[in-house]
Amino acid sequence: MERKLDNYLPFILKSKNIARIEGDAVLIGDRRAYPFKKEFVVCHSVEEVAVAIETMVTQGGGPMQAAMVAMLFLAGRADRGHIKPAAEIFIRAKERLQVTRPTNTTMARILESLVDIICKEIESNNQLEPAVQGYIENFQKEYEKRYFIMAEIGSGLIEDGDGILTMCFAETSFILTIALALEQGKNIKIFSPETRPYLQGARLTAPCLMEIGADVTLITDSMCAHVMSQGKIQKYMTAVDIVTSDGWAANKIGTFQNAISANYHGIPYFPLAIDPDMTRRGRESIIIEERNPEEVKMIRGVPTTRSDMKAYYPAFDIVPPHLIAGIITPMGLISPYGLENVYMDKELK
Amino acid sequence: MERKLDNYLPFILKSKNIARIEGDAVLIGDRRAYPFKKEFVVCHSVEEVAVAIETMVTQGGGPMQAAMVAMLFLAGRADRGHIKPAAEIFIRAKERLQVTRPTNTTMARILESLVDIICKEIESNNQLEPAVQGYIENFQKEYEKRYFIMAEIGSGLIEDGDGILTMCFAETSFILTIALALEQGKNIKIFSPETRPYLQGARLTAPCLMEIGADVTLITDSMCAHVMSQGKIQKYMTAVDIVTSDGWAANKIGTFQNAISANYHGIPYFPLAIDPDMTRRGRESIIIEERNPEEVKMIRGVPTTRSDMKAYYPAFDIVPPHLIAGIITPMGLISPYGLENVYMDKELK
Repeated sequence: MERKLDNYLPFILKSKNIARIEGDAVLIGDRRAYPFKKEFVVCHSVEEVAVAIETMVTQGGGPMQAAMVAMLFLAGRADRGHIKPAAEIFIRAKERLQVTRPTNTTMARILESLVDIICKEIESNNQLEPAVQGYIENFQKEYEKRYFIMAEIGSGLIEDGDGILTMCFAETSFILTIALALEQGKNIKIFSPETRPYLQGARLTAPCLMEIGADVTLITDSMCAHVMSQGKIQKYMTAVDIVTSDGWAANKIGTFQNAISANYHGIPYFPLAIDPDMTRRGRESIIIEERNPEEVKMIRGVPTTRSDMKAYYPAFDIVPPHLIAGIITPMGLISPYGLENVYMDKELK
Repeated sequence: MERKLDNYLPFILKSKNIARIEGDAVLIGDRRAYPFKKEFVVCHSVEEVAVAIETMVTQGGGPMQAAMVAMLFLAGRADRGHIKPAAEIFIRAKERLQVTRPTNTTMARILESLVDIICKEIESNNQLEPAVQGYIENFQKEYEKRYFIMAEIGSGLIEDGDGILTMCFAETSFILTIALALEQGKNIKIFSPETRPYLQGARLTAPCLMEIGADVTLITDSMCAHVMSQGKIQKYMTAVDIVTSDGWAANKIGTFQNAISANYHGIPYFPLAIDPDMTRRGRESIIIEERNPEEVKMIRGVPTTRSDMKAYYPAFDIVPPHLIAGIITPMGLISPYGLENVYMDKELK
């Protein structure tokens, strides 16, 4: 029997709760409200979807899905005669969605493909919705396959009795890894650092793990090494935003210092990378985004210091390859020094 | 010209703002309100002082001073005939104050000395206040001397252009170190991690440093290693709660992982220890206090996750001697492996 991804996932990661069309609107799951409320932001235009992405209604893999659904929404409107099926309209929509997350190269690429498909259908005077729908379904089927490959590798690395440290919100690849480990009957404990300043660990990771029945403990970002020193951690696993072809991994700020502490304690670090970026090489190819330092001075809107305090908010940090035990990818568990061999030789099927 | 300690210190660290007698009350500077407000809690009895200490009105070196002032307050009441000058009353007050911070061995020792003095004066039918006042003045003069010795060592280690990382609130020994470095004309930048969950860095350290005119930047606890990797940190300096005779140092949670990251980046770590504990030996002699995990789930009263989430709050962690470059003490800059040689040979004068 085929396993269905959504059956393993908590509320906010189920495909329909990330973004879907309902009536004449795009509904986007509001991750800002979770875990306090399960809410959706209702968008009636591509512009409203773009603003929702910009205002962090969704994050991580969410913007990619929301952008695809926005294009499907627009295709439907063209098919039903609400707008003209003109290439310019779709190109403008693509461009608007791309600028919502300038560093999300996967989303940019998908939007390019989608617009290519749509433009061809327009030329052939075809309905647009079925082609877009088909693309999204194929895409999701492909990603579902990749997630299961990665989660099989990840759960295979986890042994009965293990303690696992994560960081930030590693979304489907990590949550599915844990779900499969639990299905395999493994007794595991997960430690989720709160991930200041945006609290993805406290708000997303820990509640999602709790929802799928995992034994999760929330800690502050300052406790990771101490918990390791108590023998409570055997594996360190996170998502990564970017992996370069020579094994440098960028992820949410704090990932790097946990990797140093893990190495110090002899704990292997396994980043989960669905899409290593073979166009980048070396630490210098990654630019660290700096966000509004005001966020460091408050927590969920409550100030923590003087309003005139100077603060600094680098959003990501970079882990060097020598601190990585192996990268979990859809192509297998790969040494950070071996990505080029694997990815240059084969095309991902 | 003799330097006066208070002239170098920010508001909350000035002796009179930690605890003082005013009229018929003990005023304790409220560190919970700082930096948003400069307030005092007014206590009319030893019991009220004890409750203030227990409810974190003051912390760090504050409880020790508040306890001494409480004994002075009681001595004054006895001298003026408001209470009987009976030994039992002072012994009971001592015991009540000691249990407010069971791990504060320095405060316990001072209270024992004070009660001994008071009991002798009672036997001799002398006024009590002058003796207590004399003890406190001597004690403060002695501490002032030690702080200047330590701050001279600390500021001597800081070079022009240095970036300095601290953790939690290292109080007078660290603030005076920075004040002297500034007086020496050194251009330095300090990074203060916010220190979750209680935010001592955001609420106390960073505002205090700003108040004395230092260039301070607030970061989250997750950013320390990243800031080091950017070459922004040349020295790591913190206070310590306990240093054992063989160089293990316990301090606020997070200190340990920063020491690991500092070591990884070749940055020396200098803890400031006014009173190494020669009665303890080895990591096992330090018991890590675990506090209410609810505090990990909220920030200044605002929840960060589900109310039924499991959380963990070890308040301190322990740095092994091999991660310590040298301990700044009133006896000099001492190797973590050399404390016994120095402290067993000489008596501190």
